[in-house]
Amino acid sequence: MKITIIGSGNIATHLAIALKKRGITIFEIYSRNYSNALALAQSVGSYAIRYIEKLSPDADIYLIAVSDKAISEVVEQMPLVSGVVAHTAGCVPISILEKFSSNGAFYPLQTFTKGIELDFAKIWIFIEGNNKNSTDKLKFLSSKLSNYVETICSEKRAILHLSATISCNFVNHLYFVSQQIVEKAGLSFEYLKPVIEETAQKACKISPSLAQTGPAKRKDKDILKLHMKILEYDDNFSEIYKKLSDSIGSR
Amino acid sequence: MKITIIGSGNIATHLAIALKKRGITIFEIYSRNYSNALALAQSVGSYAIRYIEKLSPDADIYLIAVSDKAISEVVEQMPLVSGVVAHTAGCVPISILEKFSSNGAFYPLQTFTKGIELDFAKIWIFIEGNNKNSTDKLKFLSSKLSNYVETICSEKRAILHLSATISCNFVNHLYFVSQQIVEKAGLSFEYLKPVIEETAQKACKISPSLAQTGPAKRKDKDILKLHMKILEYDDNFSEIYKKLSDSIGSR
Repeated sequence: MKITIIGSGNIATHLAIALKKRGITIFEIYSRNYSNALALAQSVGSYAIRYIEKLSPDADIYLIAVSDKAISEVVEQMPLVSGVVAHTAGCVPISILEKFSSNGAFYPLQTFTKGIELDFAKIWIFIEGNNKNSTDKLKFLSSKLSNYVETICSEKRAILHLSATISCNFVNHLYFVSQQIVEKAGLSFEYLKPVIEETAQKACKISPSLAQTGPAKRKDKDILKLHMKILEYDDNFSEIYKKLSDSIGSR
Repeated sequence: MKITIIGSGNIATHLAIALKKRGITIFEIYSRNYSNALALAQSVGSYAIRYIEKLSPDADIYLIAVSDKAISEVVEQMPLVSGVVAHTAGCVPISILEKFSSNGAFYPLQTFTKGIELDFAKIWIFIEGNNKNSTDKLKFLSSKLSNYVETICSEKRAILHLSATISCNFVNHLYFVSQQIVEKAGLSFEYLKPVIEETAQKACKISPSLAQTGPAKRKDKDILKLHMKILEYDDNFSEIYKKLSDSIGSR
């Protein structure tokens, strides 16, 4: 199975490395930024392509792993190929790829940062194909990478992407906010690491609704008032605090 | 060293079990709810006390592990003792214990849920004493339980408690929100578990500011609009989404 990757960002890089590890040949790599394509190609023993029009039509699967906004431009510039063309986006319907007779989505639900190693075998991959051939090929590829593969429609994929945005990006922002607060007081973010890890593990073990603790759940108004007083210096943090406390209290 | 515990809730239970495991005698246990005190006392080989006035004055340390609101009532009812009296609250200054000549705080920064085992050796414990004797005794006790002990004033302890509320309770609420969203669409919360765990681990490994990914960071307005559209059915979730996206985008 020959896989061509379009893109050289976080997801493209993680995918290329994971595919290579599973012994899957990465046929070609194209990126708007040629030197990035070259670097990635070298690291996984593949070929970097300078002009997108020159992509070989012989790959079995083309994975478009670029930012959502860049997908339509890639589609426009790509030559017509008979292999399956799939994007890796959470929120983009596969209809954007209708130019290709076989198309689909290959969405690994995870947060990817360059240099942070991940075990792909534990990542959920959600696939969608416009026909049986696309679905089967994407399913086959996914199963080489992960033990967790599901077929899902574009609409539900967007809902998963939204939920992941909340439990990943928004959660990380709360970590950031708490880091700002402790560091402003000359305290270390280290102090919060055990509770951050335990909170994630506990929610996964017993479900978030059973895991909830703290002053907002107990409706302890004295503590809420005290916390708001500490946060007086930052309108943004105060508002986030109030909104989330109210939301917990209203359950 | 004789330790008396006042309370039989989450923290009291976890503390009693952890102390027993380290071979520290739990002298007596008092709880407003006698049968709870009895159950906890039986599980750690201690004695349950029915009336708070009857607490023995011979303990070295009295740990008041009750809800913040209940502390002042406990203080009022407790006999005058010469041992160190410390509470386990994040947000309550030690001045509330001034009735006792030796007093302080013993604050383990963690989320405690009954039945969820924790390794106390990895929990930060923040202590404060009103004099050297109190501080030394609390430091000694903490060091028996954990490798992570710091002395900290009431004001900074409250700041830590606020930050923990944000990176634990608020984070858990976001897990809850995302669970509601996926389950409404007939999808499983299981799908989100790997990203939840990775997000927590990555933030601890490389810091939240470097770990951030996602549409709000990329200021991808199309995705934000689409997500808001999916959330139209819930004003509360929409508002949380908007507030946190704006906050990420404003960085």
